[in-house]
Parts: sequence; structure tokens; C-alpha cells
Amino acid sequence: MHKVIFDTDPGVDDAMALLFLHHSKDVDLLGITTVFGNATIETTTRNALYLKQEWKIEAPVAKGAGETFIPHRVTHAPPTFIHGDDGLGNIGVPDTIDVPLDPRPAHRFIVETIRANPGEVRIVAVGRMTNLANALKEDPEIVSLVKDIVIMGGAFDVNGNVTPAAEANIHGDPEAADVVFTAGWPVVVVGLDVTLKTVMTRQALSDIRDAAGRRAQLLFDLSQFYIKFYESRVPDGMVVHDSCACAYVVAPDLFTTRSGSIRVVCGGIADGQTIQKPDSMGFGPSDWDNLPSQTICTDIDADAVLKLIHDTIVSVQES
Amino acid sequence: MHKVIFDTDPGVDDAMALLFLHHSKDVDLLGITTVFGNATIETTTRNALYLKQEWKIEAPVAKGAGETFIPHRVTHAPPTFIHGDDGLGNIGVPDTIDVPLDPRPAHRFIVETIRANPGEVRIVAVGRMTNLANALKEDPEIVSLVKDIVIMGGAFDVNGNVTPAAEANIHGDPEAADVVFTAGWPVVVVGLDVTLKTVMTRQALSDIRDAAGRRAQLLFDLSQFYIKFYESRVPDGMVVHDSCACAYVVAPDLFTTRSGSIRVVCGGIADGQTIQKPDSMGFGPSDWDNLPSQTICTDIDADAVLKLIHDTIVSVQES
Repeated sequence: MHKVIFDTDPGVDDAMALLFLHHSKDVDLLGITTVFGNATIETTTRNALYLKQEWKIEAPVAKGAGETFIPHRVTHAPPTFIHGDDGLGNIGVPDTIDVPLDPRPAHRFIVETIRANPGEVRIVAVGRMTNLANALKEDPEIVSLVKDIVIMGGAFDVNGNVTPAAEANIHGDPEAADVVFTAGWPVVVVGLDVTLKTVMTRQALSDIRDAAGRRAQLLFDLSQFYIKFYESRVPDGMVVHDSCACAYVVAPDLFTTRSGSIRVVCGGIADGQTIQKPDSMGFGPSDWDNLPSQTICTDIDADAVLKLIHDTIVSVQES
Repeated sequence: MHKVIFDTDPGVDDAMALLFLHHSKDVDLLGITTVFGNATIETTTRNALYLKQEWKIEAPVAKGAGETFIPHRVTHAPPTFIHGDDGLGNIGVPDTIDVPLDPRPAHRFIVETIRANPGEVRIVAVGRMTNLANALKEDPEIVSLVKDIVIMGGAFDVNGNVTPAAEANIHGDPEAADVVFTAGWPVVVVGLDVTLKTVMTRQALSDIRDAAGRRAQLLFDLSQFYIKFYESRVPDGMVVHDSCACAYVVAPDLFTTRSGSIRVVCGGIADGQTIQKPDSMGFGPSDWDNLPSQTICTDIDADAVLKLIHDTIVSVQES
């Protein structure tokens, strides 16, 4: 069993990823930590509580960062044109959810959960890296106590999506991401290089709904706004960014990877760009030298990942 | 006939590219302009004169920039480990060559040649972009008088070679390159995305020597040091970076291209990185907006380009 903390900013594709983790027989979901990004921290936290309630998820929800690691950084309005005003495709999420929050801030929840399960915790982070950077700042020793960090974010041999240089999760807090990538814990980066190849068609989403009942009906409904956004970007359906990172946790063999240190450009026109120095290549002296070698995904068996998502979500029938 | 100015820093692969242009029946070589890069400006200019003399090239040589577009930029020592102390593989080029230089500095030669051949001049620039930026500064109107600019430089969907972010020609003068890419003239960028796929084997180089006689013997000899450098980087032979740009001039159909505005990162860890905003993709507001759409090469028929180089160089027999 993989002991997982899911660090997330729900977010439509976050919701699918959460349902995937919740239904995966190989995952023990220890907690859900929220971060700002696809919506404000109030909205993403409310949404996490809502999904926990609707999908009967036992794991606690801990509220995380609402501003960047370096507080003075200018941030932009949430992308309501992708995830809707409510962050879940404008399905009408209630303003308040009668489910208690974990009393700890997300970064402390992360630190204490890692310390309580030494060597076992895998953090799947699919939003900005702010909570992880804050956890590292509070307790640097967790780098040797965590199992690994699997993140959705970045773009290496492809363009970004917010700007030509930068992907949204990294662009939203570049300094936090640079801290996370250069720390001495194992990081696996599932970025646009592979997520943009992983598109769930409308039909495939319908098939999940038809096979999995009420829980998947909610997933289907909240995804429609997001699918609408992607109409001009993919032939049919939705890019399942965050589920790709979750799929890596249980099925790493479906990914092609490359090792090398990673830095994030902070500031300037390429603000938030991720760049790896592949271990297999020679360069002159650079700012990538003498840093931990991390793993990035360069290719994916997208059909197999989409089948894994389908099979996992429909494996649990409506109670 | 393509009227070409060859802007170059010979340089081993520069030498092959020059011989290719010289022997191409479709090219009228109007001039050779030199720039610092693979060696100092004194050395690259001396080498251009040497090759002009040895290969009986009629086109004049004009000496260009020996420092970056923005003078205070820190520059690094020439890569003698790639091109040799003499810039031509340590073959023992004489210190002085008894061939006169064009009296004009390279950037003025470029301006006056463009103005003398309105709409016809194609500049093939395979070194740093400094002369082009200086020409633009002296006479901005040339953007509408030149036919196009074909450059070897940059790295888009692949890593750089000097640093994980940056390719050598752009890294050597990022501000100049940013000026060149964002000006209102047509630019075609032949970068590492395609040149690293274009490797001439030792056998193929020997075949050229055997078929083309004394001129190619010099090419063979001066290439050996460079081939030695590439031993740890390619299975066998030499990457013919600069010849790829020349091949584009006469055979653009051998390349796959992508259009979009281009910026160069100036400063920071990604100093000298080239980033394109593909016209086909949607992004938020960025520093790539409202700039001329330029062309980059994303793929190459390497076998056909290598055959073109072979056929062109051997087409002229020893006189």
C-alpha cells in the first residue's frame, strides 16, 4: 500500500485525481492538503471538503497556503475560465460544507504525517509547491524521512501553458518549486510533456459515469465546464493532468523518465520555467551543478493510463 | 541564385559550411563577415582569410564584432577544447594571411550590401548575432530590404549545449539575439533541435575527401580535432551545425518548421535560452505578444542534408 498525502487545489482535474486515489486498492490516503491555485485557498479548501463529503473519503483535509512562498511576489487572478467560478465547473457547490477541517495548517500536517510514518509517505502534489516549500522550511529533516514527492507541474521539452515558457503550477509559485526540486528528497515530475498526451474523451468519461454510478456522475458533471475550455485545445475531451501524477504512484512502468537536476527560472520573461540538466549530457559549468538528480517524465503510455483511471474509478461500485 | 552573406566565426563546422556555400551552384556568395565566438575576432578573421585563400573564394571578408552587443556583459574564454587553439583544429594556420580585408566593419558591409541588392540578400549567420544587431542599430530600415536571415543557433524543444538552457551562439550574446529575433525581418532559426540530429560520420567525411581532392583534404584535416571532441557526444563523427543552416538556404523542403514569435532570456540561470511562442497554441498574456512571427526548424531529413553537403562539396573538382 502506498501511503499518500494528496496536495491539491481542486480544481476539476484534481477532483478526478482524488477519486482515482480514493478508489485505488493500492493507495492508503492519509490526508488531503489544500493550496491556492485553480481557485483561492478558501474555495479549494471548501471544494476538498465537499468532495470528501460527497465521496465519503475518510482522510482529513488540512488547509494550506493562500499566498506564494515569497509573499511579495505578484500573483494573478485564479483561472476561472478553466475551472469555473467555484473551481469545480460551476456545478453549484454549497458555500459552506459541514465537515470539520484538520486543525493543523497543511505544511504542519505534512511534516507530522511524514514523521509519524518514517520512510513511507509519498506526497502527490498537483497544485503550486507552496505547502511543500513551507514544510521544508519548517522541518528540513523531512527530506530524509519522506519516501518521495510526485508532482504534476512543469514543462521540459515542450512549451508551457500559462506562458510559452511556464506551466501553471510552477508559474504560480516559482520560488517554492525551485526549493522543492533542489532539496535532497526524491522528486518525480509529471509535467506537460506527458499530461498533454493524456486526453480523456467525452465518451470515455461517459463510460466511467455509466459504470460507476452516483460518485462518477458528480465527476462527470463538474468536468463539463473544463471540457468546454479544452475544446479549442484538444480534439475531444479533457486533459487529465493531475490523474497522471496519481497514475505514476501506482504504475510507474507506464512512464518513460529522464534523470537530472532541475531548476526553476524565477523572474524575467521565462518566470516559472522548469529546466532539467540531463545526467546523460555534458555541459559547461552552470547553476544546475552539484544538485540532487531528480526524475522527470518524458513519455507516457497514455492509453494504458486512461484505462487505469477508468478501471480504478469503476472498481468501487455505489454503496 | 541566392545572394548570400555568410556571417561566421570559423570554427570547424563553419569551415565546412563555407565550403558548401562556395561550391553550391545555387549560391552567389557576396561576402564573408566575421564575428567572435569559436575564437577571438582576430583568430576567426584570420581563419576566414585563410580559408578564402586556400579555397580561392572571391567574396570579400569583412571583420566584425569582438565584443557583445551590450559591452559590459561578461564573456567567457573561447571554446578551444572544441575548435582548437587556432579555431581550425590546430592544423597550424599561419599567423598572418596575405589577403586584404574589406575596409568596412562587418555590420557596415552588411548594411551596404543589403542596400545595394534590395530584397535579394539572404544572411546566413552561424555565430553570435552581434554583427546583425549592430547592423540593425546602424540602419533599422534594412529589415524591409533584406530577403531573410537564416541563423544557426538556439535550442527550443531540447536542452542547450553550453548550459542546460542555452546554445552557444545565443549564449554568447543573448541581447543581440533578442534584438535579431524580435525585429521585423524574416528570421529562420536552425537550432540544436535539428543540428544535433545531423552527424557526419568519419567515413562520410573521408568519402568527401576522396572524391573532392585537395580542398576537401584541408576540410578533413581541420575537422579531426572537432571530431575528437564529439567522441563522447555522438557515436561517430561530427555534428555539422553550421552546414544545416546553409542547407536550409538551398533546400528548405528538407526541414520541418514551426512559426511563432521568439524571445531570448537575458540574464539569470537560463541566460541565452531561446523560447518560441508557437502561433498554433494559446497562452495568457506574455512577453512574446505582438512580436513578428519567425520560423524555427523542429525536424530535419538529416540523411538528405548530409547527402546534399556531400554532393555539393564534391561537385567542384580540384582545378
